[in-house]
Amino acid sequence: MLGSTYPHQVCSAARALEVVGERWTLLIVRDAMHGMRRFEEFQRGLGVARNVLSDRLGKLVDAGILDRVEYQERPVRLEYQLTDKGRDLRPVILALTQWGDRYVPHPDGPPRLARHIGCGAPVTQRSVCDVHGVIDNAEVRTVPGPGATARERAGEPTPH
Amino acid sequence: MLGSTYPHQVCSAARALEVVGERWTLLIVRDAMHGMRRFEEFQRGLGVARNVLSDRLGKLVDAGILDRVEYQERPVRLEYQLTDKGRDLRPVILALTQWGDRYVPHPDGPPRLARHIGCGAPVTQRSVCDVHGVIDNAEVRTVPGPGATARERAGEPTPH
Repeated sequence: MLGSTYPHQVCSAARALEVVGERWTLLIVRDAMHGMRRFEEFQRGLGVARNVLSDRLGKLVDAGILDRVEYQERPVRLEYQLTDKGRDLRPVILALTQWGDRYVPHPDGPPRLARHIGCGAPVTQRSVCDVHGVIDNAEVRTVPGPGATARERAGEPTPH
Repeated sequence: MLGSTYPHQVCSAARALEVVGERWTLLIVRDAMHGMRRFEEFQRGLGVARNVLSDRLGKLVDAGILDRVEYQERPVRLEYQLTDKGRDLRPVILALTQWGDRYVPHPDGPPRLARHIGCGAPVTQRSVCDVHGVIDNAEVRTVPGPGATARERAGEPTPH
């Protein structure tokens, strides 16, 4: 865990941000998804201070998002590999990328494109209904679940 | 814009995080999606210091994610409404929530559930291929696009 940033928040987005919301953290996970594994690669790619990178990598290992693996014995050299928990952050990063491509575009076009490994066609993050398949995001609403607070179950605030 | 947190990063996820990556920002957007509009509602819901909330709301207005709208004239009272740019963050928040539900679960179950407005069935965020429809996240890879740096286009780092 990266510390209790949102102590009074029960929602799962807030709980997720406690783990991956710290500065640089999601970008390290992104780079790991792009194939980076070694400290020097992350450092060169991110241009972040070494002590900050070292701190973030350690926290990601503690949170079970990266595994620290010895790839050389003498001298000992370590690399970082995504766990399943880390790989499952892919939709978060792809959704952020999709939004950034649209609303904070790079002048030359998207720096990175998501593609289907099987056929090479573009891939987007979409809302998928268990019954109706792909639906428009505007057709999604969220409702209080079993872990909601009493206030949330009571329906405050009322949409107005 | 919320300040230049990642000045050397060209990727759209990094550019997105420059806008919405600051502490509290995504949770304010989440609450706005749940129907909150007024300062006091956000303040009560988040339990965040008023000066921090005021700062974040101002930055979200500057970034075009919220509109500040007068809903009462005497005395003047303002509320905050999501713009299209703000509403399009829904996939990011839903993907974060989905990951949090799985990996940082609330002991009583998910505090909030995503549902299809039309039929009430569960909704998940999925990867959708233009050709093949819904695919597994493991079938997605990212490749350098037109805005990639020379190093990225050259293929560094090589996945290994």
